[in-house]
Amino acid sequence: MRKLFVIGIGAGDPDQITVQAIKAMNQVDVYFVIGKGAEKQELVDLRTAILDEHMRRPYRIVEVPDPPRDRTPDDYQGVVDDWHDRRAQVLQELFAETDGAGAILVWGDPSLYDSTLRTVERVLARGELSFDYDVIPGITSVQALAAQHRIVLNRIGEPVHITTGRQLRAEPVPDALVMLDSECSFTGVAGNDVHIWWGAYLGMPDETLIEGPLREVEAEIQRVRAELRGRKGWIMDTYLLRSGGA
Amino acid sequence: MRKLFVIGIGAGDPDQITVQAIKAMNQVDVYFVIGKGAEKQELVDLRTAILDEHMRRPYRIVEVPDPPRDRTPDDYQGVVDDWHDRRAQVLQELFAETDGAGAILVWGDPSLYDSTLRTVERVLARGELSFDYDVIPGITSVQALAAQHRIVLNRIGEPVHITTGRQLRAEPVPDALVMLDSECSFTGVAGNDVHIWWGAYLGMPDETLIEGPLREVEAEIQRVRAELRGRKGWIMDTYLLRSGGA
Repeated sequence: MRKLFVIGIGAGDPDQITVQAIKAMNQVDVYFVIGKGAEKQELVDLRTAILDEHMRRPYRIVEVPDPPRDRTPDDYQGVVDDWHDRRAQVLQELFAETDGAGAILVWGDPSLYDSTLRTVERVLARGELSFDYDVIPGITSVQALAAQHRIVLNRIGEPVHITTGRQLRAEPVPDALVMLDSECSFTGVAGNDVHIWWGAYLGMPDETLIEGPLREVEAEIQRVRAELRGRKGWIMDTYLLRSGGA
Repeated sequence: MRKLFVIGIGAGDPDQITVQAIKAMNQVDVYFVIGKGAEKQELVDLRTAILDEHMRRPYRIVEVPDPPRDRTPDDYQGVVDDWHDRRAQVLQELFAETDGAGAILVWGDPSLYDSTLRTVERVLARGELSFDYDVIPGITSVQALAAQHRIVLNRIGEPVHITTGRQLRAEPVPDALVMLDSECSFTGVAGNDVHIWWGAYLGMPDETLIEGPLREVEAEIQRVRAELRGRKGWIMDTYLLRSGGA
């Protein structure tokens, strides 16, 4: 039976990888990288360093470009759906040509805002290629954010609402953990008692943290974020908003 | 400067510990266990096995019983607040008597439904003992749940709502990731199109998974949960509910 591993490798700190992930990696013959060219060189280098450090057997990396997709569509769900289909086609073709165990490495955790598992399920649903697969969890950027700010994500006994920048703009709630926000959507959250804990490049050498009352630090975060993004050419950030102050 | 580490050690699978956690552990002289006697022997043994496997230097474990608290209070916040205060007193006394670096190991991640960081902040707020501390994230039971069921926790572009059994009973929403539920509160969630992915003892030898349409499997989960709990004397479980089917 063919075997595929989907392995979470953490948010960016090479040490935030689990022993379970390292053991899985050492059963892998071929790593599939779907999205060659789209990923920032710094992340490619980081992933290479993780492989170099932990692989104790020969392995290959097979890279293909990601199928293109419209990043600002009117029909968001439809475009994502179509893109997953084309990713599934690419993965199936790569895996069908492969001898041995395959793997896909995922930044963060495959269970949170990542499309890899949906792609894998689509390949299986086509019924043209059969294989078993295992999922290995990884530390997410929200966990790295919490650890670096030394905060608890929930109030005592209260829920945690994880959402995206897009959703926050649609419904600007003052208590949320926000991922995938390219537009500083926290500026649209009303209230003078909202606190923010923000972090960019979590776990990486350029890690940057800012926290404070939202109204006092929002302009600084916008400025710092624009400056970092301009200098490096890319940014990944996440933040916690909480009403009622710190 | 005194140093304290608060280290997430994962949900129960000893391999779900990070390299970062192992490196932090190897700077530790004394482990504080506040709650001696309350923890199940199986978890104590598991933690001991993790220490045995990864510690490369001599270390001590200092254990004290947890201050008692009312588990079914009318004033939930007040009782928890008082309990955190007494935990802080205990930790301060232990740490003050200690030479070298201290650590507290936390199941899952210190940032999610865990009181350790609040206790540590209270010790610092008293101003009687100064120290630096680091937080190391760990894999949570919800990540272990997702990995074992091979599911993504969010719908495409949608939020994730993490909550407790208590909150779910107060507001029985059909889309939630539920922790700390001792009462099978999923039975109070209405609807015929809700799906559940349930797991107990995630990552441990007795790991048990059930998934299916909630109305079809809820009685089975209640039966299996009661049977496991009766046989082992304790249970830890978590689950994802999603409306609209699998």
